[in-house]
Amino acid sequence: MLLIGLLAGTLAGVIDLAVDWMTDLKEGVCLSAFWYSHEQCCWTSNETTFEDRDKCPLWQKWSELLVNQSEGASAYILNYLMYILWALLFAFLAVSLVRVFAPYACGSGIPEIKTILSGFIIRGYLGKWTLLIKTVTLVLVVSSGLSLGKEGPLVHVACCCGNFFSSLFSKYSKNEGKRREVLSAAAAAGVSVAFGAPIGGVLFSLEEVSYYFPLKTLWRSFFAALVAAFTLRSINPFGNSRLVLFYVEYHTPWYMAELFPFILLGVFGGLWGTLFIRGNIAWCRRRKTTKLGKYPVLEVIVVTAVTAIIAYPNPYTRRSTSELISELFNDCGALESSQLCDYINDPNMTRPVDDIPDRPAGVGVYTAMWQLALALVFKIVITIFTFGMKIPSGLFIPSMAVGAMAGRMVGIGVEQLAYHHHDWIVFRNWCRPGADCVTPGLYAMVGAAACLGGVTRMTVSLVVIMFELTGGLEYIVPLMAAAVTSKWVADAFGKEGIYEAHIHLNGYPFLDVKDEFTHRTLATDVMRPRRGEPPLSVLTQDSMTVEDVETLIKETDYNGFPVVVSRDSERLIGFAQRRELILAIKNARQRQEGIVSNSIMYFTEEPPELPANSPHPLKLRRVLNLSPFTVTDHTPMETVVDIFRKLGLRQCLVTRSGRLLGIITKKDVLRHMAQMANQDPESIMFN
Amino acid sequence: MLLIGLLAGTLAGVIDLAVDWMTDLKEGVCLSAFWYSHEQCCWTSNETTFEDRDKCPLWQKWSELLVNQSEGASAYILNYLMYILWALLFAFLAVSLVRVFAPYACGSGIPEIKTILSGFIIRGYLGKWTLLIKTVTLVLVVSSGLSLGKEGPLVHVACCCGNFFSSLFSKYSKNEGKRREVLSAAAAAGVSVAFGAPIGGVLFSLEEVSYYFPLKTLWRSFFAALVAAFTLRSINPFGNSRLVLFYVEYHTPWYMAELFPFILLGVFGGLWGTLFIRGNIAWCRRRKTTKLGKYPVLEVIVVTAVTAIIAYPNPYTRRSTSELISELFNDCGALESSQLCDYINDPNMTRPVDDIPDRPAGVGVYTAMWQLALALVFKIVITIFTFGMKIPSGLFIPSMAVGAMAGRMVGIGVEQLAYHHHDWIVFRNWCRPGADCVTPGLYAMVGAAACLGGVTRMTVSLVVIMFELTGGLEYIVPLMAAAVTSKWVADAFGKEGIYEAHIHLNGYPFLDVKDEFTHRTLATDVMRPRRGEPPLSVLTQDSMTVEDVETLIKETDYNGFPVVVSRDSERLIGFAQRRELILAIKNARQRQEGIVSNSIMYFTEEPPELPANSPHPLKLRRVLNLSPFTVTDHTPMETVVDIFRKLGLRQCLVTRSGRLLGIITKKDVLRHMAQMANQDPESIMFN
Repeated sequence: MLLIGLLAGTLAGVIDLAVDWMTDLKEGVCLSAFWYSHEQCCWTSNETTFEDRDKCPLWQKWSELLVNQSEGASAYILNYLMYILWALLFAFLAVSLVRVFAPYACGSGIPEIKTILSGFIIRGYLGKWTLLIKTVTLVLVVSSGLSLGKEGPLVHVACCCGNFFSSLFSKYSKNEGKRREVLSAAAAAGVSVAFGAPIGGVLFSLEEVSYYFPLKTLWRSFFAALVAAFTLRSINPFGNSRLVLFYVEYHTPWYMAELFPFILLGVFGGLWGTLFIRGNIAWCRRRKTTKLGKYPVLEVIVVTAVTAIIAYPNPYTRRSTSELISELFNDCGALESSQLCDYINDPNMTRPVDDIPDRPAGVGVYTAMWQLALALVFKIVITIFTFGMKIPSGLFIPSMAVGAMAGRMVGIGVEQLAYHHHDWIVFRNWCRPGADCVTPGLYAMVGAAACLGGVTRMTVSLVVIMFELTGGLEYIVPLMAAAVTSKWVADAFGKEGIYEAHIHLNGYPFLDVKDEFTHRTLATDVMRPRRGEPPLSVLTQDSMTVEDVETLIKETDYNGFPVVVSRDSERLIGFAQRRELILAIKNARQRQEGIVSNSIMYFTEEPPELPANSPHPLKLRRVLNLSPFTVTDHTPMETVVDIFRKLGLRQCLVTRSGRLLGIITKKDVLRHMAQMANQDPESIMFN
Repeated sequence: MLLIGLLAGTLAGVIDLAVDWMTDLKEGVCLSAFWYSHEQCCWTSNETTFEDRDKCPLWQKWSELLVNQSEGASAYILNYLMYILWALLFAFLAVSLVRVFAPYACGSGIPEIKTILSGFIIRGYLGKWTLLIKTVTLVLVVSSGLSLGKEGPLVHVACCCGNFFSSLFSKYSKNEGKRREVLSAAAAAGVSVAFGAPIGGVLFSLEEVSYYFPLKTLWRSFFAALVAAFTLRSINPFGNSRLVLFYVEYHTPWYMAELFPFILLGVFGGLWGTLFIRGNIAWCRRRKTTKLGKYPVLEVIVVTAVTAIIAYPNPYTRRSTSELISELFNDCGALESSQLCDYINDPNMTRPVDDIPDRPAGVGVYTAMWQLALALVFKIVITIFTFGMKIPSGLFIPSMAVGAMAGRMVGIGVEQLAYHHHDWIVFRNWCRPGADCVTPGLYAMVGAAACLGGVTRMTVSLVVIMFELTGGLEYIVPLMAAAVTSKWVADAFGKEGIYEAHIHLNGYPFLDVKDEFTHRTLATDVMRPRRGEPPLSVLTQDSMTVEDVETLIKETDYNGFPVVVSRDSERLIGFAQRRELILAIKNARQRQEGIVSNSIMYFTEEPPELPANSPHPLKLRRVLNLSPFTVTDHTPMETVVDIFRKLGLRQCLVTRSGRLLGIITKKDVLRHMAQMANQDPESIMFN
């Protein structure tokens, strides 16, 4: 856990620093040292004062460097072109690396990790190559300015770290269950470093990612998340020694009447979630089924080009998305120079700097409003097309950005309404003239939570992450109200969150713990063999020869065979794994004398009584599992599904008064569930 | 959920207000209206200024009211006596009410709720009487000044609300599982109102209280906790419209070097946890086994008297414990008038009020230090004797108080060390002269978390509750470090938290999810009948008469009977519940014609072939559970325990190749586990 935390924290720190530098590289370069980002470059230069901190001679835009012009149309166009070129270069590098070295490094990885934690094995998905390539390409794609975040992929990166370290210790590498516990904890560490939110990370792992979360895992996740957050804090990529990514401080409490716009934002978040999931799934399905899927590099290049071309002219899309969110969350203090804070000041009023009353909006605010509206539409559309391309891509940050933009606009609207109409009955009680009653930044925060909730359907972990992100502990109730509304609205249109939707789309065999199985079918309806199918392949306890068994193994591909007393009685005595059978027979043939093809194999304690001249029998009781899991044929499937989920079974035998009737595998359960939900049962993928 | 949240929030608000008033009643009374607390009394009076807010003419101490003296020895003695008298009166009333009306209202209730959620039924434990009496007596005992908190009992109160509302809806009243889900959510609402910490409440319910926590419950708990917190906020008992109980704002970050004292506090917390659990359990065992247990009223009176006599002279124990904690958590600002903030000011220094540098301690601080030390020793001793008496009593607040006192003392120590020795290598880097580098209040907070963690062994929920309580989001790492250390230290001395220890002491049949069962016994070692015992009482599918079955039912007290094909083959076909059997036979005898004592009972689809003159047979397939849970006799007990836990079974049948061998009940599993842990298996209580 310590090692996972350390490595995940270090990687996250390195990614943050690299992204910072490469994002700025799209705009210009530092003359004193090209590996400095804009901010670092101007910090080290002594010639700048606080006001001019964004303009320092050592930092040169590309136009200044190349044609020595900093203003004017041609400089603008040159900078624009350089921005697009860098973005295309980064995106091309990323998609090529993913294609050539590690195809599993694409996407957010959370749907796959959910599936892996539910017991499915995808070989190489958590391998060392995936770790390396995902880390490098993540830096590239985030820097390229595409509408995606680094949060989901960081969870995948952390899980790769977890897998790597658990393969070093035999306690974990040999026991699937223990390894999955380590992966759950690693997922928590991933979210912890992605947001600097250790507790939110633990809850995210619990609510979203993990399948079975014993209390010991809670405690371990907590430790891993702590170490990871601590490591990240030591690296200090944000340069402010705060764990908090978007630290905000608001000076006013919220009022009851504001719950109404907050709930409206929740509704917006739910609608956005529905739109995003439907749109994105439709597009991904088209990618899978049409020619589009054959040109992943071209697709990435085109989307990057479109993003860069549209994003550059608008100041709210040009900068990195996390900077945008940070600005939208911030309250307008006295020192704030942002366009969003261009209010008309009343010159007669002198007040402490912290407590600025509501003021009429200036021209900058109105400009900002329509720029934000354009940016919102653009973000909504482009994110639908971006998520799911063959590059690492997370959707936390884009979702939050959509919500923050919508929220900030609503917030400014309410603020202006309250300012101009403080005699209205809704405002009269809490918004006297000259008071600071509406905080637009809070609306942005609530909107971000609502949109993230709509897409992922998180509730508790969402609220915890939001207030760990912002430090806004006083605002639990607004955040909760928005999260709850958003979940309700989105659930009304479809029960699946984005991760479940992608699991379904890809047909992973994932037995969702959240759905309730309510159909009234019985085990006998699901078990195989069905009516008319050949009987179940079974072994008898003391009457089959080695050759019979070898033929059976050759002719079938089942993972194991039930062992019964005899073909007549069919009373079940145990279950033998295919792999162990093969190994035992091979060993016996090589090492035990007298074992020939027509030796009798027996699973009983004592050898059967055989005619005098028959060959030496082979005892195989060692490979027999004497306690296979059984249910009766009358067991409701509801119970069977519950047992499969809670005990993590792969198969279960069906008996009636001790006689073996059939077998139900996890595959059968999943197929049956798909059938009951009117889906194509053959769409489910198995390894 | 809405109703539970509303009721729990309202009750918590009423309790807070009543406690406030009654605590002050011990010291004096308000002349304008006797139902005003000290604070309310002085607020309504216009004659007071801000500085004198504690002294207003309308509020009279008992000595002023009775003998018209406010100073001097006799006034002090009179006030002292009145304080003791009121405390005794409250405590006597409380213990009498509990004894007469609702014996289940005593204790914190959390061990019992844990047991109930694991599937055990304690009739009346969550009843309406318990709800009413617990609410009233909780107010009385908290006001009496005993060393106990209202947090644990509030969880019990909320669960009573949950039980009450779920009995109103048939969906919940008829399904045990669903009702338990409601109770889990209610527990979350309880913690939510106890601390004003909705998210901490959900996590507490998850980590400490609940047995099986499906995701749907998470989401519901969240809603209930939200509503409850919101209701409480509307009632606004703390008068500051904050949800946060002990709001603090610190002005300095913490430094790496401070981790060392924080970890020391963690060690202290772990030791305190061990001491408390051992001491308290030893005392409770003595109460159970000796004559002491026969005089609960006397015990409460004596403890209250001792508490009141010792508490009054020391200002830190006289006031209510939550006020004490609040003062200890607070940073010394410029306006702080507390003795703890009596530092020697440098008259040459003028500074903004917020940023006060470290200063040498004045005489008040030294006085406070030894008073705190005495209060600490007293609290440690008296809490051990208080928890477990026959009154409602929680231990969150006393534990936190112990930790906060120790933490504050350590904090002041470190601060003075840093002030006097800023040239030491550990201080040199971060503590320049004149800087504000050590915040003693933070140490108090960390100490409180460590002590609470040591007693309850919470981790994640503890940290979340602490920062919801204090709003100190920046201090996650110190809190986590202390919580982790405290858990490690305490676990080294004994794995059980206080709640598990009480469950064990009372012998509740609780199958702990946290312990791993690692012994290598098999199902056959645990099942009954044992070797030499009479065979299992079974029913045959078509050969017993009604009279045979009635005799069997009369002679045994089993909850149900396995049904087999015949006594010879013993192949299992199902399980029939005793209660349903009795009912079915009674109905048949009354309503069906031709059913007499020697009618054959059959469980098969078709009636058995009977001689021509035999009476009409009775078909009972309806009461037969055709899918009883079975394991084979070779199943390891590890697996059996796991199945019992995860599926919440009450019994499980043991078979070998279809033949019934025996039965394992939850009782047998618990007895076996106790035996394996070298405990007396007969100490476990069953209803």
